[in-house]
Amino acid sequence: MTHGPIESADNFCMKNIQILAFDVFGTVVDWHGSIAAEVRQLYPSVDANAFARAWRAGYQPAMQRVRSGELGWTRIDDLHRMILDSILPQFGLDGLGESERQHLNLVWHRLNPWPDVVQGLSRLKQKFVICTLSNGNISLLTHMAKHGGLPWDCVLSAEVFHAYKPDPKTYLGVAQLFDVNPESVMLVAAHQDDLAAARDCGLHTAYIERVHEFGLDMPKDISACDDNTWHARDFMHLADQLGA
Amino acid sequence: MTHGPIESADNFCMKNIQILAFDVFGTVVDWHGSIAAEVRQLYPSVDANAFARAWRAGYQPAMQRVRSGELGWTRIDDLHRMILDSILPQFGLDGLGESERQHLNLVWHRLNPWPDVVQGLSRLKQKFVICTLSNGNISLLTHMAKHGGLPWDCVLSAEVFHAYKPDPKTYLGVAQLFDVNPESVMLVAAHQDDLAAARDCGLHTAYIERVHEFGLDMPKDISACDDNTWHARDFMHLADQLGA
Repeated sequence: MTHGPIESADNFCMKNIQILAFDVFGTVVDWHGSIAAEVRQLYPSVDANAFARAWRAGYQPAMQRVRSGELGWTRIDDLHRMILDSILPQFGLDGLGESERQHLNLVWHRLNPWPDVVQGLSRLKQKFVICTLSNGNISLLTHMAKHGGLPWDCVLSAEVFHAYKPDPKTYLGVAQLFDVNPESVMLVAAHQDDLAAARDCGLHTAYIERVHEFGLDMPKDISACDDNTWHARDFMHLADQLGA
Repeated sequence: MTHGPIESADNFCMKNIQILAFDVFGTVVDWHGSIAAEVRQLYPSVDANAFARAWRAGYQPAMQRVRSGELGWTRIDDLHRMILDSILPQFGLDGLGESERQHLNLVWHRLNPWPDVVQGLSRLKQKFVICTLSNGNISLLTHMAKHGGLPWDCVLSAEVFHAYKPDPKTYLGVAQLFDVNPESVMLVAAHQDDLAAARDCGLHTAYIERVHEFGLDMPKDISACDDNTWHARDFMHLADQLGA
């Protein structure tokens, strides 16, 4: 595990990066901790950690149904709701009414940022355009930004491109919207597969360690990958490295 | 000319409005003053007021070429450049090189907000989701927000909907993205035709007086239209009326 630039500091590369596009779930916000806390408060008898992880586990398979064409374009709010309805019985919550389900489903709009995020983004914003690049829909990301005080320059989403990451349309779409080359954009994410797909499109990449993304009791592998341009403990550490 | 709500205060209507979508050119930023000032500084021999107005005069005809299908989807940056190239000769600037033209064209990314805007938006943001709904492209609006310190919750553009205002896809698109009824959205604009088109889609509307949109020497008609939900001198006055 390294802390610091994977490559030696490269002024050319530093100068060329103009846009930082951030993955959101796990990278910017603590989905596990936020959901578990809300479930624990609302439904004390439920295993809140398991509930949060079960909900998230349905995420990739649900998007795959859209990617494969089995479902037409469906926003994440609606995919979250389908997954929620499917997991409620196994947690003894199949008696929840429609308004309770709607309220619980919107917990994804109320996720809390990791402690370094607001200050880190505020620093990075001084030097770069900072935007989201998330599979979350626009309204989810907008409400989350208001909830957490996230100072995005703009909110970009798979919903704008009608394609879910890791579709190249999403990564290249950011460069096209800003009328820059892909190497002027850097994806910032806590997931190596997302970063690898961005790199294949010519973007720079920065990995962020979020060891407790899946909960305190389930630390994840945060090994560095040499293919990333940067590797940082958190957003403050990334801002340090980028001179922001 | 009235100052205040056109309708008597209506709590039901007030409570239902969740999203304020702002027209940008003329409503949020002083395109005429900003462009004239930059042209005056760069090219002192040019009639800067006439230059700004000539550039803007090409705007609706250029978008009409997209609406009619004569041109495929073309972002405003590119339409601005086509208009710029066409007006340079009449101002004796046909000798401008490519890099000067590129720089000048991006003056639309550097437009300054009217004096009430940043404080007014900051107040309105406490109570509503505030977003752009402009024919300007995403990068233009994003750079402008950084330049002027505009605290948008999200940046929406005709570019997201691939349709230029007054196409109903744009007004209804905001409601659809936020999963609300059209009457939960209010368009805020300094142009009655934009507001009328939004109203036809079921949105609430607020008119903002920008008497000097076309320059100090060319005051425009700012008469109230009874069909608007609100009529305000500026964003502070709108915030006063909306209790924000």
